Amino acid sequence: MARPSLREKLASSAVDTLHTLGFKGCSIQDITDAAGVPKGSFFNHFENKEDLAIDALRRYLEGSRPDMLFDESVPPLERLKNHFTFLSERLIANGFERGCMLGLFSAEMAREYPRMRQELREVFDRWCSGVEQLLRDAQAKGEVDPRHDAGQLARFLVNSWEGATIRLRITQDRQPIDDFLNVAFKALLK
Amino acid sequence: MARPSLREKLASSAVDTLHTLGFKGCSIQDITDAAGVPKGSFFNHFENKEDLAIDALRRYLEGSRPDMLFDESVPPLERLKNHFTFLSERLIANGFERGCMLGLFSAEMAREYPRMRQELREVFDRWCSGVEQLLRDAQAKGEVDPRHDAGQLARFLVNSWEGATIRLRITQDRQPIDDFLNVAFKALLK
Repeated sequence: MARPSLREKLASSAVDTLHTLGFKGCSIQDITDAAGVPKGSFFNHFENKEDLAIDALRRYLEGSRPDMLFDESVPPLERLKNHFTFLSERLIANGFERGCMLGLFSAEMAREYPRMRQELREVFDRWCSGVEQLLRDAQAKGEVDPRHDAGQLARFLVNSWEGATIRLRITQDRQPIDDFLNVAFKALLK
Repeated sequence: MARPSLREKLASSAVDTLHTLGFKGCSIQDITDAAGVPKGSFFNHFENKEDLAIDALRRYLEGSRPDMLFDESVPPLERLKNHFTFLSERLIANGFERGCMLGLFSAEMAREYPRMRQELREVFDRWCSGVEQLLRDAQAKGEVDPRHDAGQLARFLVNSWEGATIRLRITQDRQPIDDFLNVAFKALLK
């Protein structure tokens, strides 16, 4: 098997380093040390740390199974619940210290890094559109009250999820996730 | 009028500096420069940057009018709406770049700063308790469905609010706030 390229080694290791320490909490040296590559090699592969963080965000999202939102073999509301349950399990497996990379980079980087902000904008917009489409299907099938504004409800759910992932950094337990799943699926989407 | 003490000058200026740049986005030098005090004076007044950030968080919260939650001259649900509307107006007045200091420090600091994490835990717990008490009053008065678990709903609302303040760093507009207010008060707490 071919050895991973140095770029690949750097980029895949950086997902964990950036997620754990935060963008402002680690230096390029921390990232190259964690990847076991020479610091000098960084700029052969990435323009700057923001460039690498955008790459890390894309890799992180590949692991979030966006395809689950669009799997029409599962009824819409059950599919949405599976989606957030999958994200919950991933968060818990990561320990309660890391939260969601989207919320972390939004808090740390939106102000000073317009390329990252634009990337995050597109990621959130795609995610919200997927949830909105699913909610419309659920409304068409009578699973969700048709009086809800599907776009607004989708944005609210995505933002509330992000809030739960921020709060669990503080509680260090799964209560914020359970609160989200219970209120979203038992009170709001009944 | 007495001149503010050097400590007061440093501490009150640091609220803005930390809120704008983030804890990891500014140095002690940035903070003393912004306050117009000598860098060397910092350690006469604060043990370290975390100590100052905890002081800044307390000052920030004084401006969030927690008393509004407990003003029994206003019916509970209207009081809750006034509370979040007041927070919304403050966020918007700050521009869309700063979000809420609680969410910012939670994202940046919870992992490595146990004293700040403990402080944030107490702040969130007090806030959630206040909202829970209010929701119980609203349920007793028939304003909110008594089948809701008031504690869970209070935590969900607070966390969802935090999520909205994270998202508006990305959208740079008030849509996340409006989504929160509309879904919370028109769909959930009807």
